[in-house]
Amino acid sequence: MELPERASIIEVGPRDGLQNERNFVETAAKIEFIKKLKKAGFQEMELTSFVSPKWVPQMKDSEEILASCLDATRNFVLTPNERGIQRLLETSCRNTAVFVGVSDTFNQKNINKTTAESLDELKPLIRDLKNKGYFVRACISTAFYCPYEGKVDEQDVLAVCEKFEEFGVDELSVADTIGMATPKEVFELFSLLKHRLRSATLLTAHFHDTRGLGLANIFSALQAGVNRFDASAGGLGGCPFAPGASGNVATEDVLHMLSSMGIQTGIQMEPLLEAVDYISRHVAKPIESRQYRLARNAGIFS
Amino acid sequence: MELPERASIIEVGPRDGLQNERNFVETAAKIEFIKKLKKAGFQEMELTSFVSPKWVPQMKDSEEILASCLDATRNFVLTPNERGIQRLLETSCRNTAVFVGVSDTFNQKNINKTTAESLDELKPLIRDLKNKGYFVRACISTAFYCPYEGKVDEQDVLAVCEKFEEFGVDELSVADTIGMATPKEVFELFSLLKHRLRSATLLTAHFHDTRGLGLANIFSALQAGVNRFDASAGGLGGCPFAPGASGNVATEDVLHMLSSMGIQTGIQMEPLLEAVDYISRHVAKPIESRQYRLARNAGIFS
Repeated sequence: MELPERASIIEVGPRDGLQNERNFVETAAKIEFIKKLKKAGFQEMELTSFVSPKWVPQMKDSEEILASCLDATRNFVLTPNERGIQRLLETSCRNTAVFVGVSDTFNQKNINKTTAESLDELKPLIRDLKNKGYFVRACISTAFYCPYEGKVDEQDVLAVCEKFEEFGVDELSVADTIGMATPKEVFELFSLLKHRLRSATLLTAHFHDTRGLGLANIFSALQAGVNRFDASAGGLGGCPFAPGASGNVATEDVLHMLSSMGIQTGIQMEPLLEAVDYISRHVAKPIESRQYRLARNAGIFS
Repeated sequence: MELPERASIIEVGPRDGLQNERNFVETAAKIEFIKKLKKAGFQEMELTSFVSPKWVPQMKDSEEILASCLDATRNFVLTPNERGIQRLLETSCRNTAVFVGVSDTFNQKNINKTTAESLDELKPLIRDLKNKGYFVRACISTAFYCPYEGKVDEQDVLAVCEKFEEFGVDELSVADTIGMATPKEVFELFSLLKHRLRSATLLTAHFHDTRGLGLANIFSALQAGVNRFDASAGGLGGCPFAPGASGNVATEDVLHMLSSMGIQTGIQMEPLLEAVDYISRHVAKPIESRQYRLARNAGIFS
């Protein structure tokens, strides 16, 4: 069994995690959360998103977040459309995340476009961003199952990934949006993508823990040669547009699994758990990660 | 990636699960739980244990349980010592489980003997049971980590397994008692055991979900060729003598993972969840398995 020696964790809690909290989390608390996370050593993080404050009021403070949190590491802002990208261009952030669902129905329910229409819209925008020297991350939703259409075809996922490669993206983050992928499907899809995509394209796996398979799926993806994983501190998040979806796989549990197998990430557990403990006081969702619970049971947090 | 086509789940909830419940679960409730589990299709189950009612009052009704629940399937009683085996011989149950810890300190804290002393005591007892035609399952505790001694050497686990083989046991259930094994260690140990033990000896993996790695470890063991897994309905249980240990991996989550990868088990989800729902009303520990929670969220149980 061959596993990578090093892996990168892309922390998505401040964006993908908090975006799904019903009650507004104060801007100061978001900034403190991000700063505490940065102390743990993350070099890549989704900070916020440029979306309509009418649709996602939780992200209405994105400019303020950026003003306080940008630094020399790779900080992403999710920009789902042209308007979002325009807002990005007015900041000093140089890393963006765009997204598309492989399933038409999912994509339409999220952004009122078919998958092909989304790709057509993104093509000139991504090319422009690349010409300006931006790092572009493409998030591929419903890469395994769609809540409306069921099983998604591997070839459709590959086709979307190849389109994004053609547009010049730097990274593909391939997501099991509703937490239904099995470890076997994960190995098969990521083996195919590793084989067919350019080695220069960063390939990232994004799992939800809805059915408890988040860590098993990461273990499987590692075997397919993937060494980049999205994760959300405290397991915050889940997709509000995907019925039945629950939290992202918790960063601290991913970190434990990787570290315990000798895979280096550069992330420290203790400050990470301190960030989780901090944000736990500002969110409604109880923190259920094993590492945080073990730390609490051991009396480390009260 | 090669995975087995079929796998067996040995349900340990009525014994290993309930044994760790603080409050006595009424005998009638235990019997109803077992009967509901049997409706789900289990062919192998740990029903109870013959231990001192002074030490484990939860198991004081073991004869009553057997009187009501024995049937043509493989029903195990845990018999940790000679006295337990004597009690077994007075019943019509023909399947027993003995156990030993690979770590001396763990074994001494559990049964006041070194591992070697335990094996010496068990040798003539197992031979006698085999001569009488009993099915003997040997449970190997602390096969990865010991809460007192730390990492356990693979060669020590192999040596204990080989001893049991020499005594004539039918099955070896190799356990990560405190839920610290990594998927990598699981693959390595079970690959070694598969390679070195006789193919006629049934090899079973027993995982706890303390650090959320239960399913990842089962997925890893499957890749090492293991196709037998202990699991506890509702994730009940954990070892009271192992500080920090928490629940067994939940049968319904194991079943979901196996079924979703096309691995046949002969177990039905719906009656299994009904058994979990039933016992949830008789235990203090909240049921945290994903399958039960998804079913509750979907309004299947109220």
